[in-house]
This record gives sequence, C-alpha cells and structure tokens, in this order.
Amino acid sequence: MEANGLTENEKIRAMVMIYGQQYTISGTETTEHMQQVAAIVDKKMREIHSVNPNLNTSALAVLTAVNTIHEYIKLQEKYETLEEEFKQLKD
Amino acid sequence: MEANGLTENEKIRAMVMIYGQQYTISGTETTEHMQQVAAIVDKKMREIHSVNPNLNTSALAVLTAVNTIHEYIKLQEKYETLEEEFKQLKD
Repeated sequence: MEANGLTENEKIRAMVMIYGQQYTISGTETTEHMQQVAAIVDKKMREIHSVNPNLNTSALAVLTAVNTIHEYIKLQEKYETLEEEFKQLKD
Repeated sequence: MEANGLTENEKIRAMVMIYGQQYTISGTETTEHMQQVAAIVDKKMREIHSVNPNLNTSALAVLTAVNTIHEYIKLQEKYETLEEEFKQLKD
C-alpha cells in the first residue's frame, strides 16, 4: 500500500476519512482493507487526543506512527522468537 | 510506550526529533529504543515527502501512520500463519 496520490493504473485507489480529513490512498489491497487501516489510524489519533487534548493533528498523527512502529518492532521480535522455536522443533 | 507528555514517575521520558519537530515520548523502554522508533518515523515521513512534495506535515504523518498500520496487519497475519504451522507441528 502506498500513501500517494499518483497511482499507477493497476492500483486500487480509495478515498478515506481520517480525523476529519480526506485522503487518497492506493495499493494492491482491497478497498475494505484500506478502509479498515484508515479506521484504525483514526481511532488511534482520537485515543491520543483524549489523553492530550492540546496536541494538533500533525502531532497526533506523528505520535500514532510512533506507537505503531513501536508495536511493529515488538511483534517482529515475537515473530523472530517463534520462528526460532519453529526451526528447532523441525530439526 | 505512550505518546503523551504527562508521564508517570517510573517511566522514561525521551525528547526526540521527528521531521524537524521535537516530541516528548515516554515508556518503559530504553531511550535508545525510543530514539530508534523516532528515527524510523522520521525516515518514513521523508520518504513519502520525496514522492509527494506537496503534502503538508500533517498529511505526511497521517500517511506514515496508514502505511505502518498496513505493515503491522501484514506482519500479524504472517505471525498467525506461523503460529498455526507451529501448533500443527507440535501436535
């Protein structure tokens, strides 16, 4: 999925609403998947806003990205651990 | 890791720079981890900017969050597949 407006012809484009703003996202995924992703980002921004009502949209989005990257790294570590256990079990 | 300025005493606070803006993030992780996460977000925002130079900071941050959630979902699916294979191998 690419976050750009200049999409290639074979890509699916979806108009999504995130925190009251419309964005065009494109990718090879389904429109449903893109809407689901947008809804998660919207929800996370609103959660951070409820704790920090003074933050602007940009800061909310940056901190949403920060939290998500953190969660991604944690999941990646968990994946690598499981992969290692899997290999040992196979051998 | 929590993206807020109102941290509890036991939490570590880190000042990070993302796309030219300073943020305070807090969590139970090391400062190094938080700096690493911030550097990834900064890099991703700059990558999207290079493809879409007309987007403002807020849109860049939102689209970075969108891409990251997308990648997280994909990794989660991969994890669940591996977990299933692991269970079958154990039984």
